[in-house]
Amino acid sequence: MATTLITGGTVVSATGRAAADVLIDGETIAAVLQPGSELLGTDVAASVDTVIDATGKYVIPGGIDAHTHMQLPFGGTFASDTFETGTRAAAWGGTTSIIDFAVQKYGERVQDGLAHWHELAAGNCAVDYGFHQIIGGVDDDSLAAMRGLLDEGISSFKLFMAYPGVFYSDDAQILKAMQVSRDTGLMTMMHAENGPAIDVLAAQLVEQGKTDPYYHGIARAWQMEEEATHRAIMLANLTGAPLYVVHVSAKQAVEQLATARDKGWNVFGETCPQYLYLSLEEQLGASSDEWGRFEGAKWVCSTPLRSREEGHQDHMWQALRTNDIQMVSTDHCPFCMKGQKDLGLGDFRAIPNGIGSIEHRMDLMYQGVVTGKITLERWVELTSTTPARMFGLYGRKGVIQPGADGDIVVYDPNGHTSIGFGEGRTHHMNMDHSAWEGYEIDGHVDTVISRGKVIVDGGAYLGAKGDGRFLKRGLSQYLT
Amino acid sequence: MATTLITGGTVVSATGRAAADVLIDGETIAAVLQPGSELLGTDVAASVDTVIDATGKYVIPGGIDAHTHMQLPFGGTFASDTFETGTRAAAWGGTTSIIDFAVQKYGERVQDGLAHWHELAAGNCAVDYGFHQIIGGVDDDSLAAMRGLLDEGISSFKLFMAYPGVFYSDDAQILKAMQVSRDTGLMTMMHAENGPAIDVLAAQLVEQGKTDPYYHGIARAWQMEEEATHRAIMLANLTGAPLYVVHVSAKQAVEQLATARDKGWNVFGETCPQYLYLSLEEQLGASSDEWGRFEGAKWVCSTPLRSREEGHQDHMWQALRTNDIQMVSTDHCPFCMKGQKDLGLGDFRAIPNGIGSIEHRMDLMYQGVVTGKITLERWVELTSTTPARMFGLYGRKGVIQPGADGDIVVYDPNGHTSIGFGEGRTHHMNMDHSAWEGYEIDGHVDTVISRGKVIVDGGAYLGAKGDGRFLKRGLSQYLT
Amino acid sequence: MATTLITGGTVVSATGRAAADVLIDGETIAAVLQPGSELLGTDVAASVDTVIDATGKYVIPGGIDAHTHMQLPFGGTFASDTFETGTRAAAWGGTTSIIDFAVQKYGERVQDGLAHWHELAAGNCAVDYGFHQIIGGVDDDSLAAMRGLLDEGISSFKLFMAYPGVFYSDDAQILKAMQVSRDTGLMTMMHAENGPAIDVLAAQLVEQGKTDPYYHGIARAWQMEEEATHRAIMLANLTGAPLYVVHVSAKQAVEQLATARDKGWNVFGETCPQYLYLSLEEQLGASSDEWGRFEGAKWVCSTPLRSREEGHQDHMWQALRTNDIQMVSTDHCPFCMKGQKDLGLGDFRAIPNGIGSIEHRMDLMYQGVVTGKITLERWVELTSTTPARMFGLYGRKGVIQPGADGDIVVYDPNGHTSIGFGEGRTHHMNMDHSAWEGYEIDGHVDTVISRGKVIVDGGAYLGAKGDGRFLKRGLSQYLT
Amino acid sequence: MATTLITGGTVVSATGRAAADVLIDGETIAAVLQPGSELLGTDVAASVDTVIDATGKYVIPGGIDAHTHMQLPFGGTFASDTFETGTRAAAWGGTTSIIDFAVQKYGERVQDGLAHWHELAAGNCAVDYGFHQIIGGVDDDSLAAMRGLLDEGISSFKLFMAYPGVFYSDDAQILKAMQVSRDTGLMTMMHAENGPAIDVLAAQLVEQGKTDPYYHGIARAWQMEEEATHRAIMLANLTGAPLYVVHVSAKQAVEQLATARDKGWNVFGETCPQYLYLSLEEQLGASSDEWGRFEGAKWVCSTPLRSREEGHQDHMWQALRTNDIQMVSTDHCPFCMKGQKDLGLGDFRAIPNGIGSIEHRMDLMYQGVVTGKITLERWVELTSTTPARMFGLYGRKGVIQPGADGDIVVYDPNGHTSIGFGEGRTHHMNMDHSAWEGYEIDGHVDTVISRGKVIVDGGAYLGAKGDGRFLKRGLSQYLT
Repeated sequence: MATTLITGGTVVSATGRAAADVLIDGETIAAVLQPGSELLGTDVAASVDTVIDATGKYVIPGGIDAHTHMQLPFGGTFASDTFETGTRAAAWGGTTSIIDFAVQKYGERVQDGLAHWHELAAGNCAVDYGFHQIIGGVDDDSLAAMRGLLDEGISSFKLFMAYPGVFYSDDAQILKAMQVSRDTGLMTMMHAENGPAIDVLAAQLVEQGKTDPYYHGIARAWQMEEEATHRAIMLANLTGAPLYVVHVSAKQAVEQLATARDKGWNVFGETCPQYLYLSLEEQLGASSDEWGRFEGAKWVCSTPLRSREEGHQDHMWQALRTNDIQMVSTDHCPFCMKGQKDLGLGDFRAIPNGIGSIEHRMDLMYQGVVTGKITLERWVELTSTTPARMFGLYGRKGVIQPGADGDIVVYDPNGHTSIGFGEGRTHHMNMDHSAWEGYEIDGHVDTVISRGKVIVDGGAYLGAKGDGRFLKRGLSQYLT
Repeated sequence: MATTLITGGTVVSATGRAAADVLIDGETIAAVLQPGSELLGTDVAASVDTVIDATGKYVIPGGIDAHTHMQLPFGGTFASDTFETGTRAAAWGGTTSIIDFAVQKYGERVQDGLAHWHELAAGNCAVDYGFHQIIGGVDDDSLAAMRGLLDEGISSFKLFMAYPGVFYSDDAQILKAMQVSRDTGLMTMMHAENGPAIDVLAAQLVEQGKTDPYYHGIARAWQMEEEATHRAIMLANLTGAPLYVVHVSAKQAVEQLATARDKGWNVFGETCPQYLYLSLEEQLGASSDEWGRFEGAKWVCSTPLRSREEGHQDHMWQALRTNDIQMVSTDHCPFCMKGQKDLGLGDFRAIPNGIGSIEHRMDLMYQGVVTGKITLERWVELTSTTPARMFGLYGRKGVIQPGADGDIVVYDPNGHTSIGFGEGRTHHMNMDHSAWEGYEIDGHVDTVISRGKVIVDGGAYLGAKGDGRFLKRGLSQYLT
Repeated sequence: MATTLITGGTVVSATGRAAADVLIDGETIAAVLQPGSELLGTDVAASVDTVIDATGKYVIPGGIDAHTHMQLPFGGTFASDTFETGTRAAAWGGTTSIIDFAVQKYGERVQDGLAHWHELAAGNCAVDYGFHQIIGGVDDDSLAAMRGLLDEGISSFKLFMAYPGVFYSDDAQILKAMQVSRDTGLMTMMHAENGPAIDVLAAQLVEQGKTDPYYHGIARAWQMEEEATHRAIMLANLTGAPLYVVHVSAKQAVEQLATARDKGWNVFGETCPQYLYLSLEEQLGASSDEWGRFEGAKWVCSTPLRSREEGHQDHMWQALRTNDIQMVSTDHCPFCMKGQKDLGLGDFRAIPNGIGSIEHRMDLMYQGVVTGKITLERWVELTSTTPARMFGLYGRKGVIQPGADGDIVVYDPNGHTSIGFGEGRTHHMNMDHSAWEGYEIDGHVDTVISRGKVIVDGGAYLGAKGDGRFLKRGLSQYLT
Repeated sequence: MATTLITGGTVVSATGRAAADVLIDGETIAAVLQPGSELLGTDVAASVDTVIDATGKYVIPGGIDAHTHMQLPFGGTFASDTFETGTRAAAWGGTTSIIDFAVQKYGERVQDGLAHWHELAAGNCAVDYGFHQIIGGVDDDSLAAMRGLLDEGISSFKLFMAYPGVFYSDDAQILKAMQVSRDTGLMTMMHAENGPAIDVLAAQLVEQGKTDPYYHGIARAWQMEEEATHRAIMLANLTGAPLYVVHVSAKQAVEQLATARDKGWNVFGETCPQYLYLSLEEQLGASSDEWGRFEGAKWVCSTPLRSREEGHQDHMWQALRTNDIQMVSTDHCPFCMKGQKDLGLGDFRAIPNGIGSIEHRMDLMYQGVVTGKITLERWVELTSTTPARMFGLYGRKGVIQPGADGDIVVYDPNGHTSIGFGEGRTHHMNMDHSAWEGYEIDGHVDTVISRGKVIVDGGAYLGAKGDGRFLKRGLSQYLT
């Protein structure tokens, strides 16, 4: 097997940094060593097949995006990234593992939904991938099937308090599913928005002629996110299930999580770059004609962007510091403006919900380091180490240590990255626009190594379709 | 230089564990490697001077006790452990670094107090040692001197809201010192109890004939710890100083810290084993004669033991889980019953305040792992990694990584440790009793390595007086 | 018209007390005067038809019980008190006004439900009565009907988050109803328990053979009351509706109310005597045979009795002091053990929910004065003044002032009342048992005057069926 | 004795309003009656000496200002209102009782300080007056003297956590004084600002050349008010003393009070009109020359005006609604700009602290009714009923009921009041300016009656020096 030495860089972990070299043997990290050529009389650099010079750069565990939706069916269309295009974009952005959501729809067998997702992904991925399981219909069959998920390497399932008639579970269903979570140790993931109430508000807005994308955010009021977050917490407390709330965007929801955590309860939360940087005010748009206002559709996602004036974004950054929010995923769910988002011209309810960010997460979060909002260590923790621990991948992923997979990113703090799709720029996601058009990043993903193989380097993609393998995950290591 | 390989064990860090070998070259960790003999064609085990078999055991970074008081002058006597006896006991217990408190008394120059502490420690220590600086008299001279502490390798100073007439600083003094903390980055450490109020209560109790050790805890009511904790937090918020509250024992004080942290403020807290295990109720004693009641003097410390019925101990364990308390030190400050503690027969106010635990901290905290209160990783984090980060030692200490000092403990989870002084047992602290008499520990400190030298192994002490060196510390790495 | 003077007593209001005489002219209070016979040269006592000597006694506004359920259909039976028996019992207990709940069942017109309740009550009542409107089925028809309620003298409606399939409203329905509340000023009253989740738990308990009345309380966990309370608060905040949570029993629900009130939100809560005095532990019963255990059915009500060990009762008394709970009603809903409660032998879910207390509320709450938990003034405020203000009756009811209805109780603090049904005692409610058997009260309802007519005096009932009239209520005066 | 009938008005109490007439006989309210001329055959209006027509107006209990400082020695000068001028201004403004602060200075006997205050006030007052006792030096003598205060009709004393070297008490002194409070039931009143810390900040600002009045507010940071408020609360909780925090201005201090009250603790707070209407931003001034900036001295008071941007004023209005703040006093402490305030030209520390508002409190607070921030009832409660209850005057004062003193204000909601000193306007306080210049009030104090005597009517002052008598107060009625 081939050996690679990454030398001269600063290895960053969740707790600190070290001047150290990393030796990869085949797919696996074999050693972390003091820099300098000799170890026990052996000239290490001279003994390996490849030497990567990381002088002046950060050497970090490959990013883990624990929330993606490749090819998700939504609103009569499908998320525009396939596993092939989406994971390749991930690789470009320094993310070497994803956890996507296999979907069980109402009326379908859980096993069949999962099998279908395996079919979609197998042989197509650029980086390793695991699955969470969406349970779209909690009933006796699905409850029984959930008890078998861990054997399949699926250690988490997701329920929706939103989207009545699609993925929605009522409280009786949630309670039963959480009992399975308590019994098996599977993590309960929750989309926490009060869907039935939101749907009333949305319908009323449309009746009033308020059909622009902006009203998507008005309908999905923060009160209904706070409410559902608290409800999920109480059901988790009642049953004893561990709870992970996805895509938290309202500061009041954060406060509910913080309160529960102050009591010692096992509740966790993720946020996404869009809730840290973007806001409802911007979604209103500058142009006043319908098409101008419809530009806001780029940022239609659920939970929605929140008002900057109300301070949600600042509070979210603070929560990342205080660990009231534990990690950052993308909720990557891209849709093109033409042919997809424009389904909702004249009625925001028909706009497919989602933003594509999988390629930019590592860069966007690194800006938090640049601006002093988080530490370098916390960047690694939020984007890699905690995702690995939270979802049962730690040891293999999320850390640079002997025995771990050789998933490593060499990040140049002095590099620069221009994000976008227009004006000569190009991202690698299958989208006809970017939600992040024009963002300028201090820092650059130089080299990406996945299980020992260099897949991105020198501005070139060196990997191949099918590089990525399915990750059987164990129970959360954040809990025990 | 000699090389050592620790092989076959489970290396535990603050975030996870790995089956890995650790190679020490001279005083420094040279590599962390996949277990198994070969690396790049070299048989590692065969190439080193010494191989330590850690099969079935945990390999952890040496403990760091960030709060000790060797030879502290208090109440007309001195803490009974010298740097020699105290650090040797530390080594026995798996602690390879301490941070003791140099004392500036009122009327003394800070530089002189520090120099005296250097004299006491130099050449006498079994393990490495650093100093915090106690500022017993905040005035223009000491404030100026504090600005020079970082150059001396002292990155933290301690003030007292208790002990009027001894170490006490009033709020005007605290404010000025915190302004230095804000300007220099030095960590402000605070003994947070309202001393003036407590002294009134104590005097009233003695007037009422309530002179037993038990009343020490009654006088030092939790309200006065909560109060002072909040006051310290507000002064820190006003000035912008980072704040570290020592020996937190009241759950209400924890709640004040948690509330401040929920706002994103830089406040931290330490607790000690006594506040996790021992309680005021037990201090009352079983025997009703004066000598029986005076047994309670063993546990006279400040802050005091708290009522178990009120739930302080349970809450403190919870705070360790939720990171509202970040680390565990001992506040090691031993006094013998005969000739020291007994100064307070007939008046609890004259009992020297302090408990000796330096030898038992790692064992006692490991019981939290055994009983499921904390994870194995959290044990390492609380006792080593966070102390290193909090007080500017990380990289050299607190972590097993290349370039770090070879401070390592091999801990046997299947071993057993009987704690105490009587009935054939013997601890190594210079005390005529133990505050922990009769505690039985699942687990055992097998081997202790300090900067590459095995100083404890096979039940024998192999180190020497003077092994330990002074640690120049940098600014807190927990903040940036 | 006849004139009556109540002389020599202490008139108690919500804010204080006065040595004053009360002159009633016909049905109305004509004056409150300094005691002593002369006013502007007129000998008042000599000029009136009747003089009631209240020397040494309290003269208070007649009690208002704002939560009763006469003849309520529930679980296949009907609450055992008719308007005739129930209001007569109220009179015996010093309550001169009730607000009962007219019921609109699912599929029924609101107007028809209300009309039916008028039929039940008209001509049968011993004291004045008003109605809240239960909305059992929120739809376009009922929403339209609700907008007409105020014209009918109905200024409040009640929704249920419990009892799926019976009275349950989902969040979409609640939202729409609350929008009516916001628009019209009608008070939204809420039964705040998460019914769908509770029903799952109850079914699981029965499946496990846990069928005793005690398990009613286990199934209806406090978490599900806290949850629903928070949900109701957030929906109220979202819509702008005023919210009144009925029969609060969990301390955590109180905390949710307190938190919302600290933010200045218009949320209110009522508790009932059973949640102040009785507990789940006692419901477990002493006898271990099935019939002994079934004695617990006497105290099956929803929300359920809560654990005393968890401190709910103490917290509830505290909340009465701090005004986080504003008033005390009974939720009077009596069922006999034989032929009604015993429907649930073998399955607690079939036990009709309810306790009869209408006769004892004033006495039971006065015990809070005797034990020092509340002040004399707070007793009057909780049982009369605030109910009147909260539900639009103040001025006519709830206060002793000129122009108010002559509804007055002369209460003897030196009297004594034995509560119960057995052993020679008899209450006047139509029940074959008492939930309060054996309670001994310091204090006694001596004289009860309803609109100027003495209806209870000297241990005799002097009123007649039909004395009571319907009360058209206005909007809440507590809000404006 | 003369009789007066106030007829046709709306009598407003803390809980509601009534169309009622009020009959005063001599100094005392004899009856409250239904409007209309006849009572038991007597034509009331025809039988009295004087009839006051209150048609279309509010009839309210005379205002009680529980915090005034006539002739207070401060900063080398004296508050500019004597008891004569100050109480006459009070009368003009609808305030018929004041509670002023008798001062014991350090080194003086409490009895002597009190006697001196009696001398200052006796025979000079336009309205009734009571005293709180300032304890400027807590020692054994003053502690003993405090135990005798209740016999003198003084049921409250005040301590200062601010003003070291003047009125300041340290925590040991506060603790001892609060023990007297607990034993005797005397209310502990507290000026809650951390004086020692504030004095450091103030000195540093002056050293930096920041000497303008504006910096008074910067030095007295909200953190130091929050801190001291919490400290006072904890000392009160420790001792069991009831606590009343004066002139609360920071929202964070309110939150501390609210938190304590949520726990059921007996802590209360007052705010003042300046903290509801005025802000630090305005104090900065428009003009940039020194004299322009010195205009800010008009609003130098302690606690200081707070930043409007930070939301203190809005939060304070909310706290009045939620009863987290129970009452509104003025802290009336006037100083002239010329010869008094100007002592602080060039050093804000030398500006006498205080604002004169005694004449405007009722009008200013009524604006809260006009703008919908509080109800009409709450206006009466905050300005009269609660002050009476809080400080042991209820029954005589604070309520319109038989037996109460005939202290009544007829307030015209359709009247208008222009506040100020300049441009043809004149207030009646002995000041050369107004802190409220230019405020326009919807509403007008038409008639003021003090113990049955009309002292203000038709824009004329009809009273005389010496009308007011000393009020012996009992213990707080808000507590029991």
